[in-house]
Amino acid sequence: MGNRQLSQKTAKLYEQIADHVAGLIDGGTFRPGERIPSLRQLSTQKRVSVSTVLQAYSLLEDHGLIEARPQSGYYVKTKSPYSCPEPEISTTVSDPTEISIQELTMMVMHDLFNPNLVQLGAAAPNPAVLPTGKLNRILASLTRRKGDFGIQYDIPSGYKDLRVQIARHMVKAGCSLKPGDIITTTGCIEAIDLCLRAVCRPGDTVAIESPTYFGILQSMEAMGLQALEIPTHPRDGISLEALGFAIEQTPVKACLVISNFNNPIGSCIPDEKKKSLVQLIGEHEIPLIEVDVCGEIYFSEPRPSVCKAYDEKGLVMLCSSFSKTIAPGYRVGWVTPGRISSTIEWLKFTSSIATATFPQLALAEFLDRGGYEHHMKRVRRTYAHNVARMSEAVVRYFPEETRATRPTGGFLLWVQLPKSVDSLVLYKQALRSGITLSPGDMFSSTRRYRNFVRLNAACWTDEIERAIARLGDLIKGQIN
Amino acid sequence: MGNRQLSQKTAKLYEQIADHVAGLIDGGTFRPGERIPSLRQLSTQKRVSVSTVLQAYSLLEDHGLIEARPQSGYYVKTKSPYSCPEPEISTTVSDPTEISIQELTMMVMHDLFNPNLVQLGAAAPNPAVLPTGKLNRILASLTRRKGDFGIQYDIPSGYKDLRVQIARHMVKAGCSLKPGDIITTTGCIEAIDLCLRAVCRPGDTVAIESPTYFGILQSMEAMGLQALEIPTHPRDGISLEALGFAIEQTPVKACLVISNFNNPIGSCIPDEKKKSLVQLIGEHEIPLIEVDVCGEIYFSEPRPSVCKAYDEKGLVMLCSSFSKTIAPGYRVGWVTPGRISSTIEWLKFTSSIATATFPQLALAEFLDRGGYEHHMKRVRRTYAHNVARMSEAVVRYFPEETRATRPTGGFLLWVQLPKSVDSLVLYKQALRSGITLSPGDMFSSTRRYRNFVRLNAACWTDEIERAIARLGDLIKGQIN
Repeated sequence: MGNRQLSQKTAKLYEQIADHVAGLIDGGTFRPGERIPSLRQLSTQKRVSVSTVLQAYSLLEDHGLIEARPQSGYYVKTKSPYSCPEPEISTTVSDPTEISIQELTMMVMHDLFNPNLVQLGAAAPNPAVLPTGKLNRILASLTRRKGDFGIQYDIPSGYKDLRVQIARHMVKAGCSLKPGDIITTTGCIEAIDLCLRAVCRPGDTVAIESPTYFGILQSMEAMGLQALEIPTHPRDGISLEALGFAIEQTPVKACLVISNFNNPIGSCIPDEKKKSLVQLIGEHEIPLIEVDVCGEIYFSEPRPSVCKAYDEKGLVMLCSSFSKTIAPGYRVGWVTPGRISSTIEWLKFTSSIATATFPQLALAEFLDRGGYEHHMKRVRRTYAHNVARMSEAVVRYFPEETRATRPTGGFLLWVQLPKSVDSLVLYKQALRSGITLSPGDMFSSTRRYRNFVRLNAACWTDEIERAIARLGDLIKGQIN
Repeated sequence: MGNRQLSQKTAKLYEQIADHVAGLIDGGTFRPGERIPSLRQLSTQKRVSVSTVLQAYSLLEDHGLIEARPQSGYYVKTKSPYSCPEPEISTTVSDPTEISIQELTMMVMHDLFNPNLVQLGAAAPNPAVLPTGKLNRILASLTRRKGDFGIQYDIPSGYKDLRVQIARHMVKAGCSLKPGDIITTTGCIEAIDLCLRAVCRPGDTVAIESPTYFGILQSMEAMGLQALEIPTHPRDGISLEALGFAIEQTPVKACLVISNFNNPIGSCIPDEKKKSLVQLIGEHEIPLIEVDVCGEIYFSEPRPSVCKAYDEKGLVMLCSSFSKTIAPGYRVGWVTPGRISSTIEWLKFTSSIATATFPQLALAEFLDRGGYEHHMKRVRRTYAHNVARMSEAVVRYFPEETRATRPTGGFLLWVQLPKSVDSLVLYKQALRSGITLSPGDMFSSTRRYRNFVRLNAACWTDEIERAIARLGDLIKGQIN
């Protein structure tokens, strides 16, 4: 870089090209995590030298819009729209606590299904990216071809062809599963429930992330389990130091993590850290219940691995579902229970006999030949785009002290509001403006997220932008 | 009856007509619980006087084949094929016990889905009487008409039209329900599970019938609940004396009964006794979880009522499903939670969000205009017939000391074998002969039914008759 004496004209050319590419990114042609044209492609298209494009791309890198990846090319930076800091990590390991957030979740639940509200609350996927037409054609055809089979009880472990497909698709996440290692369930939450039933007795303590999905807290409350909330970083997940410390201090019976694109915090445990986590629980022979419902919704390649991939002892019980990616209304999930497979199969039998038959048949066919990868590319692109748009809007409309997560997958934002804001008050004010959201207190048994909210960023419309702006006003109103 | 001096010829005529009708009953034209031709119809058909037919019917009554019902006519007696005594009622109220029958049910579960075995084990309905064609046509049509709706999460309380249909159909059982009183579930067992979660905490005691369905025992075990087994009569169900005594002695948190055509014991609590039961639990403010999955499978009119019909305090939580009558593979059940409706709705949301959408849509249409009553008539006739045939076979092939229930609905037989017979040994021997059944120990946490078996009588074929004969041989082999 000795020769930095560029003529006015050359500098202008760099900027023109940089502006052109920035325009494509802003306009949504290339979205966070997507590859932009190669140096050679753009040099051909714009009739300039490769080194000119290189200079232009360097400018964009300096502005934090794109990033180079070795031997791969240039990508739109997934962090680009985030100009507010990430939420703080919760700091203390508290004592195990009993869980009681019933009243709060009941109130919120009713709004979640009110079609007259702007739905920033429930973690429902965007209806526009569900493969509705294809699945319906498959289901209709199945009623003719497998009608007798579809009406009857399936076996407790679930439909074999579906389990074959699950095993195949999980290779990408680093797993070597056999269909016999998998048991299908009524959504992911049944899978989690069966695992907790299998390894815990009432009164036992389970180490969980803080914050975590309220359905998990509820399951635990119903079984009389104690939650030990472990600090969890919004980027790389559960603190292993805190978890290790907790295991030494408390008789922890099981550990439960949402390893990829956590609900609500968006964290994705890096591969190396996943290995360390599996080693840690292995040393103490503590079963790990791992949830991966959003693992397929990554904004940039590669698909993140799962802890199960590093599990040599059979201690990891991986739970997932198709509710966030293909068909929420089908209520089909699955679990690979590792060494306690037969116990889980038996619990499945006694707690629901088997998973509904037709939804399993339809999913098996869709995964086999419904264009799953094509479908998922569209899902990932849409969510990356919408999460970025909502993040930008949060920066634009919420007060300056706001912090927000920078998820690299999934479709949820976890937002830390200024300390004086009470998200429950905000929730009630928002309702009067026709907006629903999930207040932070739903995601902990200790009420430590009073000034947090979870926003569903699966959809992005003008109406939603206005809702974010309105929320911003309400929040500012609480501060002033 | 002064004039008993009948001429030879007239007596012969009575017998001829009686033989004719008996032949129709034996041949299956008129089945247990069905009405036979009226006096007038048969007198016209046979060109004899009404009083001659009356004499013939009196002969049949004397032989225990038919019975007169005031202002209704003559019916094939439902008890006709039972010539062995009913099982004994369990006599003692035991202390609350922890439940652990995991190993046993696991073993049995695996055979239940083995297509190479003669299936006398699982309580699966007869595939031949499921409305397969109609339901499949409805489902295929729904994929075109309601495809967008069917793929998405339903609301936690369930599909409104289905709840309307349930409310309408339950009028016959004495209930005045509104759709808003009903929440749909993933099969009946989820309904039971939600009710137990709502009213009990780990360590609480629940009064249940003895014997009772093993899925209920498992649900309770998972929640750390204590089972208080109350003696239950094979004909009229749970002993109110014993239950009243137990409630006085023990802090009972809830009571759970399968009120109509109990699994496994077949009992049907008479209407007056249901009223007394509701009054008893009402006096103590104890919630009653009532299961009615087979209530629609009555062998003779009228449909038995449910305890819920007499519930003025909102303490009865009625649970049911469509798994025994329409579509086991759909996994759709429901609950009317009475006064704790909002708690159950919330638990449903946190434990499975909602019931699968498409199966609910299809059931709603089938109930509305799929010929439900026509379908159920066929179901009732078939099961009445097959239960009678299996009962006869038990009398024929099992040793003399055998006792068997005389269910007036459902499709299960509960058989008490001679004291020295171990049903677990029998189960293992039967397996080697390619037959599976449910040993008595599955239906209690106290192992008090060692010499009992539950047989599924939903189907009747020559192969099944041979299986019953083989079981008879195996049982006799254990005695000698």
